[in-house]
Amino acid sequence: MRELEERIRLDGQVLAGGILKVDSFVNHQVDAGLMDRCGQELAARFASLGATKVLTAEISGIAPALTTALHLGIPVVYSRKTKPITMPDQVFLTLAPSHTKGRMVELIVSPEYLAHGEKVLIIDDFLASGATILGLVRLAEAAGARIIGVGALIEKTFEGGREALRPVGVPVESLARIASMGEDGIVFAGQ
Amino acid sequence: MRELEERIRLDGQVLAGGILKVDSFVNHQVDAGLMDRCGQELAARFASLGATKVLTAEISGIAPALTTALHLGIPVVYSRKTKPITMPDQVFLTLAPSHTKGRMVELIVSPEYLAHGEKVLIIDDFLASGATILGLVRLAEAAGARIIGVGALIEKTFEGGREALRPVGVPVESLARIASMGEDGIVFAGQ
Repeated sequence: MRELEERIRLDGQVLAGGILKVDSFVNHQVDAGLMDRCGQELAARFASLGATKVLTAEISGIAPALTTALHLGIPVVYSRKTKPITMPDQVFLTLAPSHTKGRMVELIVSPEYLAHGEKVLIIDDFLASGATILGLVRLAEAAGARIIGVGALIEKTFEGGREALRPVGVPVESLARIASMGEDGIVFAGQ
Repeated sequence: MRELEERIRLDGQVLAGGILKVDSFVNHQVDAGLMDRCGQELAARFASLGATKVLTAEISGIAPALTTALHLGIPVVYSRKTKPITMPDQVFLTLAPSHTKGRMVELIVSPEYLAHGEKVLIIDDFLASGATILGLVRLAEAAGARIIGVGALIEKTFEGGREALRPVGVPVESLARIASMGEDGIVFAGQ
């Protein structure tokens, strides 16, 4: 998606440790209009697959997942990192490593909102190693739901997430595919 | 807002300790269409005030704040509870008590995205005691920004938040005002 690539080129910052900082339009400050257009594009790419629910991980997955769900006309569920007191005692829980936190975090979903037979579209801000998304896949499978696709705003193709997701056997779409990044700048795949 | 009140009556659950559980459409699972219409309504109520930025608190403020920002055509910033490694060392930080966590949580905003002279509209899911929103007010004031209004999806009028916000001296709007709730059900203000 040209608009997102241009925005990453303009406002993205490559930090040490292979971190792409997009805090000015995705992760801390959110460009609501851009996020809506990204959600519209992701919804269009998966429209034919009949998803019944979007699943994402708090915190930074919420914005793109919400706008995708809006354009598909379905609800979104975001996994929690800590169990709030409103959640039942029995939950679906898995662990995934956090790239930006440097430790394992919990992904928790209430069985109230992820049911057997649902067709789940997973949306997140980044597809890097695929570890968070694979955690969401495990949660959905534990619930007896079926994954129908995986979408991300930004893919770092050099971190192997697409390969890690291959066994899931579903379409994987990302709106901006970064082939390499460093002090020289950001190179998108296919350019 | 009639639609939100009806949804609360239908799907909200009153738990022990004065907790209103709206996890099926606001807090864990999100009804994206409803959230968009709520954002549209909040945007309409504040449209004349010239906000330049929406400010909210992660996690459950993100959805209504994003849709409000979308309809106002401005960005949204959500305060973080932990400082990610992408954030500069010098930040705006304050503490606020969390109703659902039973302890103090940090509200952190990067000075990169909250600047002197900005006109800030604060949006959150709940207006209860007002403690979280007053924390956001302190962050915005520390940044030299001006608060122009406060909006919430659901107000518990019996928890005093509106009175606590009076010294801020800005319009306070909420889409569903709960006057009382208990085993007998939920009573909305003005009904």
